[in-house]
Amino acid sequence: MRLHVGCELTFEFPQETPLIAILNVHHSRVADLIGVETFTTSPAIQASGYHDQFGNWCNRIVAPAGAFSLSTNAVVNDSGGPDPVVLNAVQHPVQNLPDDTLVYLMGSRYCETDLLSDNAWKLFEHSPPGWQRVQAVCDYVHHYIHFGYEFSNPTRTAYGAFGEGRGVCRDYTHLAVALCRCLNIPTRYCTGYITDIGLPPPYAEMDFCAWMEVFLGGQWHAFDPRNNAPRIGRIKVAHGRDAADVPLTNIFGPNVLTKFKVWADEAAHTLA
Amino acid sequence: MRLHVGCELTFEFPQETPLIAILNVHHSRVADLIGVETFTTSPAIQASGYHDQFGNWCNRIVAPAGAFSLSTNAVVNDSGGPDPVVLNAVQHPVQNLPDDTLVYLMGSRYCETDLLSDNAWKLFEHSPPGWQRVQAVCDYVHHYIHFGYEFSNPTRTAYGAFGEGRGVCRDYTHLAVALCRCLNIPTRYCTGYITDIGLPPPYAEMDFCAWMEVFLGGQWHAFDPRNNAPRIGRIKVAHGRDAADVPLTNIFGPNVLTKFKVWADEAAHTLA
Amino acid sequence: MRLHVGCELTFEFPQETPLIAILNVHHSRVADLIGVETFTTSPAIQASGYHDQFGNWCNRIVAPAGAFSLSTNAVVNDSGGPDPVVLNAVQHPVQNLPDDTLVYLMGSRYCETDLLSDNAWKLFEHSPPGWQRVQAVCDYVHHYIHFGYEFSNPTRTAYGAFGEGRGVCRDYTHLAVALCRCLNIPTRYCTGYITDIGLPPPYAEMDFCAWMEVFLGGQWHAFDPRNNAPRIGRIKVAHGRDAADVPLTNIFGPNVLTKFKVWADEAAHTLA
Amino acid sequence: MRLHVGCELTFEFPQETPLIAILNVHHSRVADLIGVETFTTSPAIQASGYHDQFGNWCNRIVAPAGAFSLSTNAVVNDSGGPDPVVLNAVQHPVQNLPDDTLVYLMGSRYCETDLLSDNAWKLFEHSPPGWQRVQAVCDYVHHYIHFGYEFSNPTRTAYGAFGEGRGVCRDYTHLAVALCRCLNIPTRYCTGYITDIGLPPPYAEMDFCAWMEVFLGGQWHAFDPRNNAPRIGRIKVAHGRDAADVPLTNIFGPNVLTKFKVWADEAAHTLA
Repeated sequence: MRLHVGCELTFEFPQETPLIAILNVHHSRVADLIGVETFTTSPAIQASGYHDQFGNWCNRIVAPAGAFSLSTNAVVNDSGGPDPVVLNAVQHPVQNLPDDTLVYLMGSRYCETDLLSDNAWKLFEHSPPGWQRVQAVCDYVHHYIHFGYEFSNPTRTAYGAFGEGRGVCRDYTHLAVALCRCLNIPTRYCTGYITDIGLPPPYAEMDFCAWMEVFLGGQWHAFDPRNNAPRIGRIKVAHGRDAADVPLTNIFGPNVLTKFKVWADEAAHTLA
Repeated sequence: MRLHVGCELTFEFPQETPLIAILNVHHSRVADLIGVETFTTSPAIQASGYHDQFGNWCNRIVAPAGAFSLSTNAVVNDSGGPDPVVLNAVQHPVQNLPDDTLVYLMGSRYCETDLLSDNAWKLFEHSPPGWQRVQAVCDYVHHYIHFGYEFSNPTRTAYGAFGEGRGVCRDYTHLAVALCRCLNIPTRYCTGYITDIGLPPPYAEMDFCAWMEVFLGGQWHAFDPRNNAPRIGRIKVAHGRDAADVPLTNIFGPNVLTKFKVWADEAAHTLA
Repeated sequence: MRLHVGCELTFEFPQETPLIAILNVHHSRVADLIGVETFTTSPAIQASGYHDQFGNWCNRIVAPAGAFSLSTNAVVNDSGGPDPVVLNAVQHPVQNLPDDTLVYLMGSRYCETDLLSDNAWKLFEHSPPGWQRVQAVCDYVHHYIHFGYEFSNPTRTAYGAFGEGRGVCRDYTHLAVALCRCLNIPTRYCTGYITDIGLPPPYAEMDFCAWMEVFLGGQWHAFDPRNNAPRIGRIKVAHGRDAADVPLTNIFGPNVLTKFKVWADEAAHTLA
Repeated sequence: MRLHVGCELTFEFPQETPLIAILNVHHSRVADLIGVETFTTSPAIQASGYHDQFGNWCNRIVAPAGAFSLSTNAVVNDSGGPDPVVLNAVQHPVQNLPDDTLVYLMGSRYCETDLLSDNAWKLFEHSPPGWQRVQAVCDYVHHYIHFGYEFSNPTRTAYGAFGEGRGVCRDYTHLAVALCRCLNIPTRYCTGYITDIGLPPPYAEMDFCAWMEVFLGGQWHAFDPRNNAPRIGRIKVAHGRDAADVPLTNIFGPNVLTKFKVWADEAAHTLA
C-alpha cells in the first residue's frame, strides 16, 4: 500500500525569526519513500538540516517577516497491515537492557516518573510483565482519561493528566509513557501520521498524532493508548522522551499560526 | 466511659510572638466535660478566646521570648461505643441541603474540587448515593494511599495525594473530603483525639488525628479514611474546610517546637 | 451620583439543575439602594436566599431544563468620588486584630500563603508597614503580571500567577491577596462592578471585576492591583477568601453559558 | 595543582538490585588524570560501562543483597586557578548555534521553560546579552533563593524554586538553567566536586555540588549560581539537561543509603 502524507503550516511573523521544524518522515522509514520527500517553504528559504540526539531530522530555518509557509509531501510504502501485536514479546530485566534504551527509563519534562512511581506499581504490579503489562497500561489510560479537545493544555504533564483525568492524545501518551517507565520498561513518545484507513466514517479533520514505543523482546513496538486498537497506516515523524523533544516547530520569537493542514491517505486517492 | 485527653506543646521563641491555639475540646462535646477543661501556659499568660466561623474555640496568646509551653487536660464522658454506622443515612439533593452546609461543598486550600471533579465522578458515579457512596470513597482512599510518616509534607494537597498516592492521615482525609465534595456531599475536615481502646498492641505514640464528617440524613457523621474502621473514643477538637482552618497552633513568627505530647485514654488509667 | 448596575446571564441546562447565584449588591451597600434591587429569572422561578458566612447574599434556585436567564438591576447612590486613599491607615500587630479578621490571614484555595511566604517577606520586608506596604504589593503585582485575556485559566492560583507571571484581574487579585496575608495583613477578595466614569475611551466590554480589601487602621479599604489607580463607581457584590468563595454562580450540573452581559454606569444615562 | 577527589556510598539492598552509577570524573577531564581513577565495589562486582547521550560515563552493576559499597578515587591535575571569567564571551543568535547545543534550549524534567518564559524575559530583557546576561541571572538567583538544607526536596523543579523562593544548590542551578534557556542561551546542568581551597574556615561537610555551563563565544563556561564567585578546584563528573539526567546512582529497587562520604582536596594533603 502506498500512503501519501504531508502537511502545511502557515505562520505570520512580525520579524525575521529562527525556527526548527521536525516535520519529515522519520529516518527509519526513509527506505520506504517512493521518490523524494519534499520540504518546501514559501517564500523559498534555504534550510539546513541535522539529526538530533534521538535521530530525528530537524530543519533549521530563519523565516522572514510576514506570512511564511512550511510544507512537506511524501509517498511511503506501507505494509497495509495493522500495528503488529507480539503477545510474547518479553520484558527485559533492567540489567539486560541495551545501553541506549536506558535514557527512556528516566523522568522528563512531561513524564514525572518520580511522582507517579507509587501509583504505577500499585496499579500494575500484578499484571503479567511484558506485552500484557504494557497493554494493561494502555487499557487503563484509554479508559481513565476523559477525552475532549476543550481539555487541551500545552503545559499539562502526565502527573496533571493523572490528577485531572482529562486531556487529548498527547496526555494519554504522556501518562502511559510515564507509567511504563516507572515499571522499568523503556518507553519513548512518538509523533506522526495515522490514516483513517479501515475506520468507519465520519472522519475528524486530520491532525498529527501522538503514540508511544516500548522496548520489549529486543525491539521497539508501537502502542497507542488514545486509540487503543491496531491501526493501518502509521508513519512516524519523530520520537523522543516526550512532547518537549519533538515539537513540530520550535519557534524562537512571537508568531501566529494562521493555517494548519495535515493529510494522510492512500496515495491512489490523492495523487495522479 | 470517661476519657482523659490532653496535650503539651513546648516552643522556643526568639522574640515575643503572637499565636492562636486551637487545642480545646470542640464545643459540641462541652456538655460531656467532667469538671473543667484546663488550658495552661508556662510561663502563665492570659489568653483571650473566641469562636471562629466554624465554631472552633481559639485561644489568642502573645508568647514571651524563650521556652513556652501550652497544655490542655480534660475528662470527657463518652458513650464508649464505636463510631456509629447509619447505613440508611440518605444523601440530600443539593437543593435540599441546609444553607449552612453549602460552604462544605466548595474548594479549599488543600481540597481542589475543581481539579478532581472528573475523577470523582468517574470513580464513584455507580456507587449507591448516601452512606454507601461515602464508604466507597473511604474504602478507595484507604487502599489507594501508601501510608508512611516519611511521606509527610505540610504543603501536600488532595490533588497531590491523589497524584503521588502516598501520605499520612491528613492526606487521606484531604483526598476523601475533596472527593465527597465533588460528589455534592457536604464534608468537613476534623482534628482531635482517638484512643487506642479496643485495639491490639503495639501502640504507636499518641498524636492528634484527622478524619472527616459528612452531612447525610440531616446530620453530620464521622468517617475515618485513614483507619477505615469504627473506633472507640473519638473526641473532636476542631473542624473546618481543611487543615488550613484548624492548625493546632497558628504562630506569627519564627519558632522551634521542642516538645510535643498527646494523650487520650480511659480516665481511670491516668487520673487518680 | 446614581449608578445603574446589573447583569444578565443566560444558560442552557440539559436537565433541572440546582444553582446558587451571588449577584446582588453586597449588604454593606443596601442602604444606598434607590428603590428595590430586582433579581429576576426567566422563566420565573422562586429563589430562596441566605447570607453565607461572609455575609454575601446567595440566591438558591432550581433551574428548569432548557434556556434559563438570571438578571439583576439596581440603582445605587454613590459618593461619586474615587476610591479613598488613607495614607496613614496603620497596620495592626496580629495580637490587636479583631477576631473576625483573622480568617483573612489564612491560606485558601487560590491563595497559598504557605508556599509564598518566603517570597512575600523577601520582597516587602523593607517597605513601611501599613498603607504603604499594601500599595507596594499592588505596585509590584500590577507591574509583575503580564495581562492577557488569552491567559485566563480558572484553576490558576496565586502561586501559579507568580510562577507564570501572566493572567487576568482575578490573578492579580489572588496574588496580591496572598502576599498581603503572608505579611500578616487581613485581606479579602472582592467581586463587583466598576464603572468607566472618568476614564478616557475606548471602553472595553463591561465585566464583573475582582479587587481586594485590606484591614488597616480599624477598617477595610479597597485596593485594586489590576487597575492600580483610584476608580469612580465601585460597587461590591461579594467578598470572601478568594474566588472559590464568591462565584457568580455555583451550578451543580452540566450547563452552557449562552449570554453574559454586565452594565454599570451613571443612572441618568441608562434609566428614564 | 593536584587534586584528590572521590566518594564512598554504602547501601543496604533487600535483594539483588540493578543500578547505574555516574560517579567517575567526566571524560573531558580524563587527560588530567594522574594514574588510574579507581572505581571499586565491595563486595567486588564486575561493572560494565557506557557513555550516555551526554557523554557521561555510566557504570552498570547488579548489586547483591545486603550491604554494598561503591567507591571512587582519582588524582587530577588542575590549573589551580579560579573559574575563568570571559566577560566578552558573546551570545550567539539561535540560528548560529551549533546543532548539538540546541537540545540545551529545551524544557526538561526540572526546568520548565514553558512556564517560566514570561518571567525570564521580564527580568532580563534589559540586561546586556552574553556573559553579562548570564551573570545577571546568577546574581538574581543567588540572592533570590533562600538557602537551607531543610528546604531540600528531590521533586522540586525550577518553577517550584521560583515560586517558593527556597532550596539547595540543585534548586539554584535548576532555576538559573531554566531562565538562561528561556533567554535562548544553551545551558546544561553539571554535577561534580568543588574544593574548599582558598575559602576561609569553617568548612561544611563535603558533598557533590551542582552548577551549570552555558554556551557563549563558541564554548561552554561554568557558572555557579549557588556560590556565585569563582572557585578553585571544580571537577565535573557529569552534565545533562537537569538533575534527572545525572543522578549519582539510579537504583532500580528499594534500598537504604547508610553511608555517604565525598572528598575533594589538594592531593598532597590526602595522599602519600
